[in-house]
Amino acid sequence: MWFQKTLILPPKNRGFHLITTDIEAALPQLKQLEVGLLHLLLQHTSASISINENADPTVRQDFESFFNRTVKENEPWYRHDYEGPDDMPAHIKSSLLGTSLTLPVSQGRLALGTWQGIYLGEHRDQGGQRRIMATVYGERSGTD
Amino acid sequence: MWFQKTLILPPKNRGFHLITTDIEAALPQLKQLEVGLLHLLLQHTSASISINENADPTVRQDFESFFNRTVKENEPWYRHDYEGPDDMPAHIKSSLLGTSLTLPVSQGRLALGTWQGIYLGEHRDQGGQRRIMATVYGERSGTD
Amino acid sequence: MWFQKTLILPPKNRGFHLITTDIEAALPQLKQLEVGLLHLLLQHTSASISINENADPTVRQDFESFFNRTVKENEPWYRHDYEGPDDMPAHIKSSLLGTSLTLPVSQGRLALGTWQGIYLGEHRDQGGQRRIMATVYGERSGTD
Repeated sequence: MWFQKTLILPPKNRGFHLITTDIEAALPQLKQLEVGLLHLLLQHTSASISINENADPTVRQDFESFFNRTVKENEPWYRHDYEGPDDMPAHIKSSLLGTSLTLPVSQGRLALGTWQGIYLGEHRDQGGQRRIMATVYGERSGTD
Repeated sequence: MWFQKTLILPPKNRGFHLITTDIEAALPQLKQLEVGLLHLLLQHTSASISINENADPTVRQDFESFFNRTVKENEPWYRHDYEGPDDMPAHIKSSLLGTSLTLPVSQGRLALGTWQGIYLGEHRDQGGQRRIMATVYGERSGTD
Repeated sequence: MWFQKTLILPPKNRGFHLITTDIEAALPQLKQLEVGLLHLLLQHTSASISINENADPTVRQDFESFFNRTVKENEPWYRHDYEGPDDMPAHIKSSLLGTSLTLPVSQGRLALGTWQGIYLGEHRDQGGQRRIMATVYGERSGTD
């Protein structure tokens, strides 16, 4: 079984956001899989998707602080600066954290660890809508 | 062919550890594949899996030094600090290096480069057991 | 449908290089897929593959500047230093950016975002040829 769908995420503030439940709600096809995988490609170069702690919002705040300190705005040596001070850092953060993510599916559910959630990293001040190409593939359960 | 299994890694010291042979030994199903892929999800948010040099242990030591210097403990601006000084840095290292890894399988073997091995990055001082959800999928060889 | 092939990239200068069209040209099999995925494993530990902006070359120049500043050569605490000053930084950059990448295929084409391209990060001064193990899998289109 293969299934592919473009998901549209509404605009979010700069920072890290949990999107696990949005992904699951948009893909009821996951419930049909006995065993399989979900692949997500965030189709942008100034945002990211990654996996991290799904409970305490201060983890996501500290992520934003860390990446802002590590990938600074207004570095005098940036050459790509005409789209604003948040642009080049956003590109770098996007590649450090990644835009392509594969997750296991078991008995109709994402098989994440207890504390794992999917983060959308919005690295632009005004990122707008974000698109994810989701690909679901695997074996259907016999009872479905 | 699809196969899925939870692997349990025994507790390891903080640092980077080669786990290629542990993964292969736990998944004899890989030998049945003519062509396919192995997906690994480390189901934690304070450790990582990545690919790097499989020969010289000083590479793994330098990895630990680099990540400790780049993602420092006890930053005054950390908000998520109640689980100890190693906790928030462990979360950040986990997302920088990743917890989801896909590897090719050819003629029954992982098709890694000559110098490539799978690293477990244990980023906590006392990380305990670690769980990996392994998903094997592909085409069986005709002779097996 | 499964297909696997080793791609050889000719030697490139240290820095970041767009290789999207090289990958597509080497894999005409992608055109046969209605829906599927392409997995790439760069079989080296001192180079990387990642996704980023495919238009302005200054983005790739700023990537090189950022990673050279963040992962410095000649750190006095490097233990793995006998292969030259560019070697240990190359290993670290390789794991920060990654060597394993999965991309969606839709109706015979890579389903990247408008501004996305595949970067080869060559992190050695004299990296030589680089090998990528490409795995294509999915469902053929009915008309092919």
